[in-house]
Amino acid sequence: MISQKMRYLAENGSAIRAMFEEGKEMAALYGKENVYDFSLGNPNTPAPDLIRQTAIDLLEKMDPISLHGYMSNVGYEDVRDALALSLNQRFGASYDRNSLIMTVGAAGALNVALKTILDPGDEVMLQAPYFGEYNNYISNFDGVPVIISPHEEDFSLNLAEMEEKMSPKTKALILNSPNNPTGAIYPAKDLKALAELLVQKEKEFGHAIYLISDEPYREIIFGDYEVPWLPDFYDNTFVGYSYSKSLSLPGERIGYLLINPRMEDFGSVISAASVANRILGFVNAPSLFQQVVSRAAGLTSDMGVYVRNRNTLVKALSSYGYQMVEPKGAFYMFPKCPIPDDKEFCQAAKKYRILIVPGSTFRGPGYFRLAFCVSEKTVKDSLEGFEKLARDYAMI
Amino acid sequence: MISQKMRYLAENGSAIRAMFEEGKEMAALYGKENVYDFSLGNPNTPAPDLIRQTAIDLLEKMDPISLHGYMSNVGYEDVRDALALSLNQRFGASYDRNSLIMTVGAAGALNVALKTILDPGDEVMLQAPYFGEYNNYISNFDGVPVIISPHEEDFSLNLAEMEEKMSPKTKALILNSPNNPTGAIYPAKDLKALAELLVQKEKEFGHAIYLISDEPYREIIFGDYEVPWLPDFYDNTFVGYSYSKSLSLPGERIGYLLINPRMEDFGSVISAASVANRILGFVNAPSLFQQVVSRAAGLTSDMGVYVRNRNTLVKALSSYGYQMVEPKGAFYMFPKCPIPDDKEFCQAAKKYRILIVPGSTFRGPGYFRLAFCVSEKTVKDSLEGFEKLARDYAMI
Repeated sequence: MISQKMRYLAENGSAIRAMFEEGKEMAALYGKENVYDFSLGNPNTPAPDLIRQTAIDLLEKMDPISLHGYMSNVGYEDVRDALALSLNQRFGASYDRNSLIMTVGAAGALNVALKTILDPGDEVMLQAPYFGEYNNYISNFDGVPVIISPHEEDFSLNLAEMEEKMSPKTKALILNSPNNPTGAIYPAKDLKALAELLVQKEKEFGHAIYLISDEPYREIIFGDYEVPWLPDFYDNTFVGYSYSKSLSLPGERIGYLLINPRMEDFGSVISAASVANRILGFVNAPSLFQQVVSRAAGLTSDMGVYVRNRNTLVKALSSYGYQMVEPKGAFYMFPKCPIPDDKEFCQAAKKYRILIVPGSTFRGPGYFRLAFCVSEKTVKDSLEGFEKLARDYAMI
Repeated sequence: MISQKMRYLAENGSAIRAMFEEGKEMAALYGKENVYDFSLGNPNTPAPDLIRQTAIDLLEKMDPISLHGYMSNVGYEDVRDALALSLNQRFGASYDRNSLIMTVGAAGALNVALKTILDPGDEVMLQAPYFGEYNNYISNFDGVPVIISPHEEDFSLNLAEMEEKMSPKTKALILNSPNNPTGAIYPAKDLKALAELLVQKEKEFGHAIYLISDEPYREIIFGDYEVPWLPDFYDNTFVGYSYSKSLSLPGERIGYLLINPRMEDFGSVISAASVANRILGFVNAPSLFQQVVSRAAGLTSDMGVYVRNRNTLVKALSSYGYQMVEPKGAFYMFPKCPIPDDKEFCQAAKKYRILIVPGSTFRGPGYFRLAFCVSEKTVKDSLEGFEKLARDYAMI
């Protein structure tokens, strides 16, 4: 007697989460150190010690009624002031608290944005490969995902296909840069072209098309790349941010939604989004961690481990014959499978106690995703298995 | 360009939340101590000191990667084990972790339950007066609220009208006891009769009807009343719980959804609910506070202030001529307005800097809700205003 929608979803649950559960079972069976679990974007580098100290300090000094009580649904005023200031310093902007809604992570932010703008049947464009949960978030509001095929040579934006597939029903486009699962970063040149396309299509269709930028990996960059700030390119932009990855706090569910004050009908959008945050059942972002992150502007976990893991894996896997576009950011890589059936390949990897996720989960069939937000030891110990797997498929 | 649904909702936002914002503005204008804000269920009694100590202890001793990391979407195993044990001790039950999903408060729990069971057009019964957010939660999944008129003499269940209004489209019934806004507690006798009615109607219609028990006020009881445990009465029961009120942690967004293991198709319900918790954007309940509440079984904030506030207000308001059913639990009372227009009356109360919420917000027109989870000083200082208000309306 569960709902039709949930019946389908429960039967076709998240492959990533299923693997996370399987990883825990394998760890119990073979010992945690003998399982190379690259399935989930769960940072293995701890939150900075300042997070711990700040949380303790708040618990010791702040009045518990204020610290744990309700505040405005959009979040504490002082927290939003502090974050606006930090964004202004980083991006030369002039936001104030009224552009910011504190959310239950980026997942909360995206659901709030989509609830705010989607009518049933509205189309939302997704550049493949992409994080599979976007489908569910869009479906929560009876939207329709429109999938843009990948540029396999570099996983850049496929602007030609976007233009082709835009229709009067196009309401939004979700962008994710640095990208999960490919590690691609979309350069300013492409974003400028995208913004021009969107402005042109808005005129043509006579209504707003929203850009929703999902940016939990903004701070995780390898080398001298820049992650452009989308509100500078396009007025009708939402930015969903999460501290899950940059501060290693995924379990705490803390992030924000920035609504570009230059957005069309800004006033009604912000008030609708504030109501959405409440009625979706979030009510408000967790209060203690609102206060914690507002005192951690500019702070990140140690990103060195991701750099080293990336370099180790790129070098080793390439030498075993795995083909890949080298990741520029985030903590994922998306190598090509040696056989077309990515599910079969990921299944085969389990023989060496390696857990990786089939690319088809991300609408990137024929690839696999490897989340390298694990310990350096896990990476090093896994290499033998990756090499054996390559030999099994005659890649070496 | 915001969605149709949100356009309506943003224009007809929560009267309670609007008043909360107004209260903050009035406090800035007249001084906090001169505003008697009875608008919001935001506990004024602090969380027990053990909560603070436990949180600090966890931050000092637990590995930050485990403390702040992802766990299963349904919550930590050890947390769910501890809570199942606590429920078993309290209710003589034999639950295990598999019946429990940790949620973003009771609002999260209710949204997860409704997402799990509702198809568009399904009807959900609500006993008036009721917490207005239920309408929004039901609307999130395109369900249809069916409102049962109150028994004004004691705000008990109107079983006759429930029977009359049940149809093959009835999918669920939300119960809230102790009740917001009336403070009523539904006795075992009535719940037994309700369960019999539901079983009979399930047979008649050939499908499950779910009881969703929203229980954030379970521990707040005045006098020798018992709050019956609904899973003992009816198999197809969900219980949504929140620590917001009992531990004064509303900002932290921590609660759980219990799914009765005797529920029809338990396995598919629990797996659908687990997926729902993820895809609605909650992902999981905040991790630190999962660990905190699992170590606080049986603990509550000081409830004495609610008892004293209730007694002061019942005595004083009755002496001024306000008519009311005396609240048995929760921290609300729901007196009758001296005029039919409850909005006008609540507006008039602002003259004495008293903030109360019109009963029509709860589908109880002609009444007002008074949330007495405030300081004893606020209650005492407000009495003069209530008396003057009574004189203005010739009640004395």
